[in-house]
Amino acid sequence: MVTLLDRARELDTADPIAHYRERFDLPGGVVYLDGNSLGALPKATRERLAQVVDAEWGHDLIRSWNPTDNGGDWIALPQRVGGKIAPLIGAQAHEVIACDSVSVNLSKLIGAALKMRPGRNVVLSEPGNFPTDLYMVQGSPAQQRLAARNAIIDALNEDVALLMLTHVHYKTGEMFDMAALTEAAHDAGALVLWDLSHSGGAVPVDLNGAGADMAVGCGYKYLNGGPGAPAYAFVAERHHDALVNPISGWMGHAAPFAFSDEYAPAPGVSRLLAGTPAVLAMSALECGVELMADIGMDRLVAKSRALSGFFLQCMEERGLLENPSPLQGRGRSAAGAEGVGDVVSTPVNTTSPTPQPPPLKGRGSMVLASPVDPLRRGSQLSFRHQEAYALCQALIARGVIGDFRAPDILRFGFAPAYVSFEDCALAVEALAEVLASGEWEREEFRERAAVT
Amino acid sequence: MVTLLDRARELDTADPIAHYRERFDLPGGVVYLDGNSLGALPKATRERLAQVVDAEWGHDLIRSWNPTDNGGDWIALPQRVGGKIAPLIGAQAHEVIACDSVSVNLSKLIGAALKMRPGRNVVLSEPGNFPTDLYMVQGSPAQQRLAARNAIIDALNEDVALLMLTHVHYKTGEMFDMAALTEAAHDAGALVLWDLSHSGGAVPVDLNGAGADMAVGCGYKYLNGGPGAPAYAFVAERHHDALVNPISGWMGHAAPFAFSDEYAPAPGVSRLLAGTPAVLAMSALECGVELMADIGMDRLVAKSRALSGFFLQCMEERGLLENPSPLQGRGRSAAGAEGVGDVVSTPVNTTSPTPQPPPLKGRGSMVLASPVDPLRRGSQLSFRHQEAYALCQALIARGVIGDFRAPDILRFGFAPAYVSFEDCALAVEALAEVLASGEWEREEFRERAAVT
Repeated sequence: MVTLLDRARELDTADPIAHYRERFDLPGGVVYLDGNSLGALPKATRERLAQVVDAEWGHDLIRSWNPTDNGGDWIALPQRVGGKIAPLIGAQAHEVIACDSVSVNLSKLIGAALKMRPGRNVVLSEPGNFPTDLYMVQGSPAQQRLAARNAIIDALNEDVALLMLTHVHYKTGEMFDMAALTEAAHDAGALVLWDLSHSGGAVPVDLNGAGADMAVGCGYKYLNGGPGAPAYAFVAERHHDALVNPISGWMGHAAPFAFSDEYAPAPGVSRLLAGTPAVLAMSALECGVELMADIGMDRLVAKSRALSGFFLQCMEERGLLENPSPLQGRGRSAAGAEGVGDVVSTPVNTTSPTPQPPPLKGRGSMVLASPVDPLRRGSQLSFRHQEAYALCQALIARGVIGDFRAPDILRFGFAPAYVSFEDCALAVEALAEVLASGEWEREEFRERAAVT
Repeated sequence: MVTLLDRARELDTADPIAHYRERFDLPGGVVYLDGNSLGALPKATRERLAQVVDAEWGHDLIRSWNPTDNGGDWIALPQRVGGKIAPLIGAQAHEVIACDSVSVNLSKLIGAALKMRPGRNVVLSEPGNFPTDLYMVQGSPAQQRLAARNAIIDALNEDVALLMLTHVHYKTGEMFDMAALTEAAHDAGALVLWDLSHSGGAVPVDLNGAGADMAVGCGYKYLNGGPGAPAYAFVAERHHDALVNPISGWMGHAAPFAFSDEYAPAPGVSRLLAGTPAVLAMSALECGVELMADIGMDRLVAKSRALSGFFLQCMEERGLLENPSPLQGRGRSAAGAEGVGDVVSTPVNTTSPTPQPPPLKGRGSMVLASPVDPLRRGSQLSFRHQEAYALCQALIARGVIGDFRAPDILRFGFAPAYVSFEDCALAVEALAEVLASGEWEREEFRERAAVT
């Protein structure tokens, strides 16, 4: 009998990017399915950080702001790293800059968008968007308007300065049709800001192909930049002249070392810089980005879909999905295990209602919270279960690391650069055992940690 | 004959904190007098970063947000590091938080101050303040008002929401009387925000003693946090309830992991957080801060004054100060070489006009741009010379690293934790030779680098 593990190993053997796993320093005995929250450590990053600390900082000291024999050129890091992120998200190199956090970059771009659309003061988003996106609007001078996915286009009117959406939903993994939403916003005279935190480095993103105006994204998830890595921001070239950064710091000045009293913005996205670049963190991010660029988005995307598709098949075959299963009648390829080429996708209809999960059932199975169609989801699968927190802790105790998102989501991320099909089979097997044994009911798995 | 170098070595032998130099990884053959721009590398930082990268990130991965056997507890870093900075600046632990950059923190606190003073919209500062401070006002909804040092108090009126000053001037090292200015601002109903970038870890700062409302400061100068280290922000406890952060990110939420759609601020300065803490950079900063705390501010301040005083004496005795010298008739101790106890200080009069340097003279001497009185200056000495840029480059070629500040300032910083009196004597000797030889006239020393 061919087990899931046998099939997983076959898929790993055939995987053209399987060897990239060796470029990461993954702990033994762990199945890591949380790279969508914190990417793993590239081995090159350890070496690069040692070089930055010892040679660039320790030895060359202040001189490293300019080019040195040891590397240096710290002043160029934000543009250089941004330029390396650009091809991963369908942007030109000079349209992307690495700096600050996603939150701070959202604050800058919300402010900038309001200046570009005088007379309009609404930022439109959806309820349940990643919290910091909404909070940034709430802290800004803009008025927040929220509309459910199926009502977003109807909510676009002449008050809306900016449509701000997260491309791949952090909880469900549901993915917006970037081109369609962007077009609808433009038809209403609004700008669009895409949060790519759960997209960049994992799913196909073509900002310029979609005509997007602005974007932000995270450095510490699929880009493997390290905990709290700098984020990035994109502004389409056509908006560069009109771009006004309300957090107008000296590093975004046209001539920072002239020390003028009057702010004058640097050309293009460089004016999005505020304070001094975080050199250590930015150097680590550069290593992660280089590794993603080396693999290439096409291969990353194909593997991502194959991984999540295989995981879903394993869930189905082990009987862990509620009945009726969303996979029934769709055949094996519908879940995406063979990659995009074999998938008969349902059309992406951004005006359709968000599918509501059926009510929670028995404790032995889970409800898929992510789209079945691999073209409509990010590089993750989420499942609802009323005891999702305890299940997650019980899995971690078995060395399978996913994460919990309140109130009832168990989330597995498939970082295609280093996750294997074997990881998927092992994770599902562990989940099956946890569900069957009821071990998650233990008290130790129910105490909430500070960070979940 | 007792040379300057002999005297320097005597002073080093008697220096009670001389041994802390061994805690830093300083390059051989270099006299480093630029710790006011980028602090040196503490040896402990190298080890700590390796631990954070290998064990906390690489091995424990996402689990390190909570406490782990390897340390972890990343979520507590901003408050923990802030709490360790607090005693260095006369604040309570819960009034300080480490986060973002000085620029971004200025943006937050300018916004917060405007909310606390409804009906007032002026931010008062001085021309020639560090550029990012002024630029942040220019990018904010506030109106900027600039007044020269001797006119600041007169410029305080009922329009002024916030007086925003840099405690120690980055170019001249001139230090404001924090208590007097704060009192004057309060008398006018305004709040005060102090930029401590050139103060924290080097000069006495007593925020609560002075009644200060808000402050920001830099992690990569005297705190030795590494290039582009996170900054810190202080808000006096009495303002915590009214504190509104316009960059209202999820990490400043009362319950970030509840993922609520509605922003609700965390208690106290924690609400100043925006995005995910920069764990690698914050860990490096913590090492630098711990080292400063270990030495203690009293010893750091005494050594700082002794170093700059000795440097000034060396300049005078080598005939490098213009005539008449500002030191003439003040005696040896007036420059501060014996430390604060021996100094007969001139009273600090914040309403006196800023001393204007005499016109540039011959090329063989320099004009002191810093206050002669060690109680009125920071841990630096600045000298004007029309060829300051080329002089700085010629000194760097000789292994003496100071820096240039446009248009004509040559600046030497005395990081008391690792600079020796021998460093001072060697630097002055090198400067004497550079000035005498005219080697700075070489073409190679006149080409401006990107970062100066």
